[in-house]
Amino acid sequence: MSSAHIIFDKTGDKVAHRVIKMRTSAVRDLFAAASRSDIISLSGGMPDVSLLPPSAIKKAMRAAAEDDRAVALQYGSTDGRVETKQVFCDLMRDIGVRCKPAEVMITSGAQEALDLIAKAFIDPGDIILAEGPTYLGALQAFSAYEPDVRCIPFDHEGMRMDLLEAELEKIGKGKAKFLYTIPNFQNPGGVTMSPARRKRLLELAEAYDFFVVEDDPYGRLRYDGGHVKPLRALNDQVVYLGTVSKVFAPGLRTGWVVAPKSFLAKLNLVKQGTDLCGSAFNQVVVQHYFTDTPWQKTLQKFVDTYKTRRDAMLAALEKYFPPEATWTHPEGGFFVWVTLPDYVDTGSMLSVALDKGVTYTPGDGFFPNASAGQNCMRLAFCFESPENLDEAIRRLAAVIEDQLELYRAFIEAGAIKATSPEAAQR
Amino acid sequence: MSSAHIIFDKTGDKVAHRVIKMRTSAVRDLFAAASRSDIISLSGGMPDVSLLPPSAIKKAMRAAAEDDRAVALQYGSTDGRVETKQVFCDLMRDIGVRCKPAEVMITSGAQEALDLIAKAFIDPGDIILAEGPTYLGALQAFSAYEPDVRCIPFDHEGMRMDLLEAELEKIGKGKAKFLYTIPNFQNPGGVTMSPARRKRLLELAEAYDFFVVEDDPYGRLRYDGGHVKPLRALNDQVVYLGTVSKVFAPGLRTGWVVAPKSFLAKLNLVKQGTDLCGSAFNQVVVQHYFTDTPWQKTLQKFVDTYKTRRDAMLAALEKYFPPEATWTHPEGGFFVWVTLPDYVDTGSMLSVALDKGVTYTPGDGFFPNASAGQNCMRLAFCFESPENLDEAIRRLAAVIEDQLELYRAFIEAGAIKATSPEAAQR
Repeated sequence: MSSAHIIFDKTGDKVAHRVIKMRTSAVRDLFAAASRSDIISLSGGMPDVSLLPPSAIKKAMRAAAEDDRAVALQYGSTDGRVETKQVFCDLMRDIGVRCKPAEVMITSGAQEALDLIAKAFIDPGDIILAEGPTYLGALQAFSAYEPDVRCIPFDHEGMRMDLLEAELEKIGKGKAKFLYTIPNFQNPGGVTMSPARRKRLLELAEAYDFFVVEDDPYGRLRYDGGHVKPLRALNDQVVYLGTVSKVFAPGLRTGWVVAPKSFLAKLNLVKQGTDLCGSAFNQVVVQHYFTDTPWQKTLQKFVDTYKTRRDAMLAALEKYFPPEATWTHPEGGFFVWVTLPDYVDTGSMLSVALDKGVTYTPGDGFFPNASAGQNCMRLAFCFESPENLDEAIRRLAAVIEDQLELYRAFIEAGAIKATSPEAAQR
Repeated sequence: MSSAHIIFDKTGDKVAHRVIKMRTSAVRDLFAAASRSDIISLSGGMPDVSLLPPSAIKKAMRAAAEDDRAVALQYGSTDGRVETKQVFCDLMRDIGVRCKPAEVMITSGAQEALDLIAKAFIDPGDIILAEGPTYLGALQAFSAYEPDVRCIPFDHEGMRMDLLEAELEKIGKGKAKFLYTIPNFQNPGGVTMSPARRKRLLELAEAYDFFVVEDDPYGRLRYDGGHVKPLRALNDQVVYLGTVSKVFAPGLRTGWVVAPKSFLAKLNLVKQGTDLCGSAFNQVVVQHYFTDTPWQKTLQKFVDTYKTRRDAMLAALEKYFPPEATWTHPEGGFFVWVTLPDYVDTGSMLSVALDKGVTYTPGDGFFPNASAGQNCMRLAFCFESPENLDEAIRRLAAVIEDQLELYRAFIEAGAIKATSPEAAQR
């Protein structure tokens, strides 16, 4: 019992069943590696906060230190400050959604919203629908509650509604709890759901009785094409998730949910036990950023910068990548999804890439239980300069070329069978 | 499907099993009522942040807006910033605990730590031990994972070890997952666990194979008596929870866990899905508050102020409360626990008290499934002035007196049986 003894943790056998299948995030593990200064990182989806004007940060923080200090430092209500909710209602109006503060709950980033929805609605074995591949943080949030996640493939118009309908037909009406989608510049796919598919998705939700969770972190980062109306603008039963992480700063951990009041009441109940309430301090800073600073001008700077980087990455892929590779062409957001022949394993290739000074995110992390995507990778263009992106893609192409060369010899010898990238993407 | 129709939430039947038994917090419901200006609130455990010097707040925030801006605004690691962890190691050293940053994880208040521990370790039906009554936020955090919480009564020396041992004897070795305790100035009890009982608790943990979670939000707010060594100082397998909410500001939502590294690895795994990472911004502010400002002087101001308020409340209880009532005499913290004869229902009495301009927290919320405590109440002395505390207790005594008068008549007539407050506390 004495602290003089070295005693190791003896709680290994006490871990809950839900934890046994959890996987640590490859992205997060890579953040550590990516801190080596010679490595160019295409792995993390980190916004470039150096674009934020220091004067705007100071101005937004002044309120928290002065006028609103008493509120900012104290406990707040579980659902968040009404003044900050009003700011989010104004942001929603810009993108075609009308809502009131009573239909808004503030969360610790959209990630907490994913956890609260899963906690309030998923029983073990419940069927959840999502794009496949999809955001790995959503898979992590859901997995704690042990659902059966069914992945629906996408193409350049977003989730394939014919495949969704076939899956629903198999599952039956009322058997899926909800569908999770990132309709704009999907993570990791980069694709955007077309207006026609959005309409169809909502028809299927009605017909097969499931609710839709629309995650929209990148919606305001569009570089080409016109705005597509959010699902929530078409149907007020849709649960919409927003965040300031990509249009302001992730360090504030502030997101929001727009949903029917009775839905929010359930999230409120589970949030009380999860973290009591969010940071009033951060909510005050966010409120003042969106009311006292020229944030639209700053957002335009983000858009211009990321557009240049996306263009640089797409040009470099065209220039360096082998003909066996295909990739998506995002109109916004942070990511390009690359598909290689299915005999390439992007997981084991990562250590070689790291050695050559470039990182990416292997594709299998974006599928439940790494059930697919072994030949795919996510490339983030948001954080590096155009010059670095060109150099990173050049390095990565060389790594891939080495892998392919070996396999081409095997294929020529008839030892393995060639597959098309399209087939591999399924 | 059109948004022109008013459609109500249709997800009521989709809620997860774990939510069905959850109760909303009476304390949180009361926060709303307590905002009426004529009401004196004895319900919420809110620190008096008006005691914080504005210059210290500004100084702590300056770093987040200037030198450390890039880090403060960006995503951070799931376990928290090492610089802020070091600050917490220094705070731990002050109270007799040696630990390294690698043994620390930063959480969104200690509340998130409770959720993460429950998420990582509780399977439905698992036995958890705790003081009864105990912190209702802990009961809420645990209840999402559907444990069987066994409550052990306390007296003026804290949790009754004879009763704990009897319970363990009944349960058997290796059958309880963990024991949750607030050894210093317990919430809601106000009692402190004696050194002898702390030693005995750790012996029982070893003998019956469960781990101990030590929640210590109030440890540095001691008004009388000498410092008692934390459980973590006696055994490095103890999981210690700290928070800045009571010594700095709850609006920053910053707490920490000290535990063996392999234990923290499990919390890290579940935290990735829960909220990805905490607010780097808040961690920078907290770090600089505890390094760049005279926080010890500010802490002394908190201690002096709360001591005066505790004294005022205890004096008022002595002056106004009826002989049938008993209450605890806390040496620190925020709360006094009052026990009334068991025919008094503090839940139904609350509306009468509100009407007379005073609030408190009914006792049953501090027991799992409101299984006891109906004749008890928690009184918080932390937030009101000594004058207001005297007036609040005067008002509350009148409400209680009205209830007792009625029952005394019944007892005299032999219609109901009198019970001692001691028996009622069980």
